[in-house]
Amino acid sequence: MAMNTIGITMGCPTGIGPEIILRYFQQLPEKPLCRTVVLGDLAVLKKISNELNFTIPMVSWQPDTPLPEAAIPVVQLSSLSADALQWGHPTSSTAHAMVNYIRKGVEFIEQGWLDGIATCPISKAALNSAGYNFPGHTEMLADLTGSSNFAMMMAGSSLSVTLATIHCSLSDVSTALSTQGILQLIRTTYNALRIDFGIPTPRIAVAGLNPHGGENQLFGSEELHIILPAVSLGCDEGIDVAGPFPPDTVFVKASRGNYDAVICMYHDQGLIPFKLLHFDDGVNVTLGLPIVRTSVDHGTAYDIAGKGIANAESLKEAVKLAAIISYNRASACP
Amino acid sequence: MAMNTIGITMGCPTGIGPEIILRYFQQLPEKPLCRTVVLGDLAVLKKISNELNFTIPMVSWQPDTPLPEAAIPVVQLSSLSADALQWGHPTSSTAHAMVNYIRKGVEFIEQGWLDGIATCPISKAALNSAGYNFPGHTEMLADLTGSSNFAMMMAGSSLSVTLATIHCSLSDVSTALSTQGILQLIRTTYNALRIDFGIPTPRIAVAGLNPHGGENQLFGSEELHIILPAVSLGCDEGIDVAGPFPPDTVFVKASRGNYDAVICMYHDQGLIPFKLLHFDDGVNVTLGLPIVRTSVDHGTAYDIAGKGIANAESLKEAVKLAAIISYNRASACP
Repeated sequence: MAMNTIGITMGCPTGIGPEIILRYFQQLPEKPLCRTVVLGDLAVLKKISNELNFTIPMVSWQPDTPLPEAAIPVVQLSSLSADALQWGHPTSSTAHAMVNYIRKGVEFIEQGWLDGIATCPISKAALNSAGYNFPGHTEMLADLTGSSNFAMMMAGSSLSVTLATIHCSLSDVSTALSTQGILQLIRTTYNALRIDFGIPTPRIAVAGLNPHGGENQLFGSEELHIILPAVSLGCDEGIDVAGPFPPDTVFVKASRGNYDAVICMYHDQGLIPFKLLHFDDGVNVTLGLPIVRTSVDHGTAYDIAGKGIANAESLKEAVKLAAIISYNRASACP
Repeated sequence: MAMNTIGITMGCPTGIGPEIILRYFQQLPEKPLCRTVVLGDLAVLKKISNELNFTIPMVSWQPDTPLPEAAIPVVQLSSLSADALQWGHPTSSTAHAMVNYIRKGVEFIEQGWLDGIATCPISKAALNSAGYNFPGHTEMLADLTGSSNFAMMMAGSSLSVTLATIHCSLSDVSTALSTQGILQLIRTTYNALRIDFGIPTPRIAVAGLNPHGGENQLFGSEELHIILPAVSLGCDEGIDVAGPFPPDTVFVKASRGNYDAVICMYHDQGLIPFKLLHFDDGVNVTLGLPIVRTSVDHGTAYDIAGKGIANAESLKEAVKLAAIISYNRASACP
């Protein structure tokens, strides 16, 4: 029986991507949920394999050819020099290479060779210095696929969160929030939970912005003027969404099973509880794209690159979730 | 051998205070850490005892008289009518009564009858409507004891946090922060960890304000201009304090044992991770007071008052911590 095929993009070649890819394949169970191929560079993978004494073989693989049985299939998408490459030190060549892995991943999905991608971390600084003006992976993928209503979800077994604002200073959060933006995020989150996560009637909580949710406008009124109208409009559309809730207890309720996701007003409101519960096994999912894309929820970790101590748990969960989402999407839209 | 005596103030008579006090005594281990007396109202305690079928006896007790062996000692500090009292509906009489429990608690400590108090929740609205212009318990106790450098700590077995700002809107946090304020909080936290918690060389982490700690001022510069100078000054004073750290990972590190406390820039930054880890057993401690004061970390819970479903875990931990702090203070300053 055919299985879905998920591509792992290698991310920054000088980060921990290559190492966690090897560890992922080393720890692969006998009966995985999907087939996995690597979009990257054999020379880099062989370099880290030699340095850390991995024994698993790897071979060059091209779409439309049979997958190897007992080796890591690698689509060779750059020709970096293993000798010149230094762990933790990205160059212009490594930056262009990492962008190419992502582009080809999207192309392969659009051509039907892959069912989704799980991405290893890239460096935003390297991305920008190589002339790519994206704040990160997510925005680049949205651009490549012509998507506008996309959102970032951090997904875990006990807590999943989406973010109404991401990389802005705490002082700017209030002005960056809008009823329409939150309403769109409610819709995107709802559709993803229903189709991608296969939850027939998702329950969504929306966090307030201020302590105690503003305590009747004693400490801020965004709850009343911005957030509550979005929740009401979401309800009017038939979405099971409630809030705004006091931020300090809504995550406890969600983690105990009362909600399938919490919509957060700012980065740390969502990331603090998420990392506390899912530091090692959290997955970053881009919602609202026509393609399936998950990602590890950590960075390039240049400080430990090449040292043999990187944890592949998040990559394992990211591939698993990409497999599940691609299965669910195909089941929902035959 | 003499044990410390901790007073439990009954809090709002119409909240869950009376119920959790009975449950606390019901669950008391055979060999407790301290003796406990109640500062409250026998009629109210008997009312909830009858309604919920508690069987433990209670007697009126006065300081300087022997403690009963097998009954709850209650210092009778109000004469409320049990018939008139409605759970969840505070009145002017109940508000004045709850203030009296706190005042007498402080007096009894100053007179040497008690070694500390663990307070049950009060209603801020009731407090204010009865003419007491304090934002809450903590400020009232600071006023009663003439303290200025006080701070609120939320303490738990795996995470303890102190807050640089508390009840202000998220938009106002940045302007409410100051280097001197954070430095004073570092000192207060350090002294409390050392003396009250008996940690000889406490390790303190300071959280940043913005996502990723501002990521080199890309999203905010409070880390550089306000927080870092406070950390440096704290280090100059010989305190083992580090930061500012990215807020989304510092609590993971602290909960894994790297730090004894995290100094937080705003209410939810500290309360979200704290409640996630210590929803039932968290304790609120007032640092920097001449008296020992701990508190449950929940509110009056008017919605469940009188229903028999209130959890006494936080009160149990609050009394335990008050006993430990009073022991540690006496050991540190013989």
